[in-house]
Amino acid sequence: LNTKAQEQMEQHLNSLTKPFGSLGLLESLAIKIAGITGNAQPNIDPAMVVLMASDHGVTVEGVSAYPSEVTQQMVRNFITGGAAINVLSRASNASVQVVDIGINGELQLPGLINRKIRFGTNNMVQGPAMERTEAVSAIEVGIEVAQSAIQKGARLLALGEMGIGNTTASSAMVAVLGQLSVDQVVGFGTGINTDEKVKKANVIKRSIEINQPNPADPIDVLAKVGGLEIAGLAGIVLGAAAARVPVLIDGFITAVAALTAVRMTPACVHYLIASHQSVEPGHIFVNKLLGLQPLVNLNLRVGEGSGTAIALPIVRSAIKIANEMSTFEQAGVSGS
Amino acid sequence: LNTKAQEQMEQHLNSLTKPFGSLGLLESLAIKIAGITGNAQPNIDPAMVVLMASDHGVTVEGVSAYPSEVTQQMVRNFITGGAAINVLSRASNASVQVVDIGINGELQLPGLINRKIRFGTNNMVQGPAMERTEAVSAIEVGIEVAQSAIQKGARLLALGEMGIGNTTASSAMVAVLGQLSVDQVVGFGTGINTDEKVKKANVIKRSIEINQPNPADPIDVLAKVGGLEIAGLAGIVLGAAAARVPVLIDGFITAVAALTAVRMTPACVHYLIASHQSVEPGHIFVNKLLGLQPLVNLNLRVGEGSGTAIALPIVRSAIKIANEMSTFEQAGVSGS
Repeated sequence: LNTKAQEQMEQHLNSLTKPFGSLGLLESLAIKIAGITGNAQPNIDPAMVVLMASDHGVTVEGVSAYPSEVTQQMVRNFITGGAAINVLSRASNASVQVVDIGINGELQLPGLINRKIRFGTNNMVQGPAMERTEAVSAIEVGIEVAQSAIQKGARLLALGEMGIGNTTASSAMVAVLGQLSVDQVVGFGTGINTDEKVKKANVIKRSIEINQPNPADPIDVLAKVGGLEIAGLAGIVLGAAAARVPVLIDGFITAVAALTAVRMTPACVHYLIASHQSVEPGHIFVNKLLGLQPLVNLNLRVGEGSGTAIALPIVRSAIKIANEMSTFEQAGVSGS
Repeated sequence: LNTKAQEQMEQHLNSLTKPFGSLGLLESLAIKIAGITGNAQPNIDPAMVVLMASDHGVTVEGVSAYPSEVTQQMVRNFITGGAAINVLSRASNASVQVVDIGINGELQLPGLINRKIRFGTNNMVQGPAMERTEAVSAIEVGIEVAQSAIQKGARLLALGEMGIGNTTASSAMVAVLGQLSVDQVVGFGTGINTDEKVKKANVIKRSIEINQPNPADPIDVLAKVGGLEIAGLAGIVLGAAAARVPVLIDGFITAVAALTAVRMTPACVHYLIASHQSVEPGHIFVNKLLGLQPLVNLNLRVGEGSGTAIALPIVRSAIKIANEMSTFEQAGVSGS
């Protein structure tokens, strides 16, 4: 982080026509982004949501409220612009890039980036979700997608995901990485009932038991009980942080991806901004592990990057405050 | 409220390509606005921030971190576009209308609406802040300003305020209206210290003691320990609710104004949307009395309507979700 740009930003904010510190988290955000970008007059536009989609073999265990085919169906919906993330990102003036990193089916759609590593993961109850080399390849895809987006001009990357079954993988990952009990971190996903939640927790426990992922080795955790979109999103964080571009996290799944990146390269944590607090209980634990405080809590549990699109105008406002407000001197206003 | 439009909205939201209820508060907001406007495809644009400014005689007691002249200086700043509310409302595509309802000085500025009732209030420690007839006139100004804004096309009104000393008046009002202890509701305002806060609480206690405002008579409370901008903003709520236009509340002061309107006409409460949770402790009590849950908590304490401008894109997103998302049927996505 560029501490000089941070200090310049802080001094500038204190000269603006408002009570000292009265813009709260907007001021902290502006300072953080100055530090990330090394620019005391930063800019986060154009902003891009990178939405990674893949399938999960564990869905055969009945862990989700929706059938596995919904992953593909929703990807079509993203491409035609009718999903929540499309509406919300249009409203927030962000573009959406959809990446097939492991959908279980052949998809050729205009605008869909095909970086498929494999046709979904294996059922992690019966062995590793994927090979270690596949997890590494998925991370590399994420790094490359981030680099390419930034080269095309993106100044902020927001994380989005689609993958029926991915709260199951994410819960397994955070239980291992955070050394937490499965029952603490498992939730209702897209809308299972209490009995199904018990089953989901048992599936996760068996997956961890059979695979014995090593908490100290984030790639081992990714490969054994993770997912391809989670690995790809971890790569986005690594690629963005290396280029000093801020990353906006969505809900539980993208937060687990960010945690995975931070476990690989701890300095990444400074480049992360948490957008919203999801309904999934595991999300609170991940935010605690990351030391992040989400900007909004609207009881969202739709994923796709929806929370980032909601939070983006707040991040943009923080920047605009710094760039556009008058100082006490300019406006002739008496200080306290 | 139009319950038919609410039901239509709820049914429509349940047909959209997302897990049932997964857009949380965005869905509740869309249903609420359908009920307010009587339209299952509502629109809240153009949105306007009505910022009422006035002075408070009680400032001579040293209750604020800033001198009383800052009210006028900031009004000039609003008109030239350099204040926080200007930057934030430009970012959120809302207009700002500034009303002088009781500034202690002659101001002739382009775009400033002059509806001055008197040159600031009296010092409420020594007697009523204003006459009852003046409080009524200020409420009437608010109703008229709301009617005029709506006639010019505004579909959502957001409340903003400026008035050095107005957290003192608001704290007094909520202590009386909510029958709460002054120490519970008094806060640091724009940035006084702990000793000054004790002094502020004593000033409020003496004001209540000498004036004996009647908790069952909101106009009596307004006149004795309130303020002209608070009365005007209560009028905005009354005028907007009568025209079935949603009202976005900012922080503590505007929430007290909304509570005053609700005590006059209880049905007004259905037309209110709380934007942000302010740092002022009294705000929590007012929200509890109103039964409202703010959309964001960013530790703001700048006033001016700043929280409404931050929350406006969220409200707009809720509407856009309803108006623009695909249904399961349209997108060919399997249900749960």
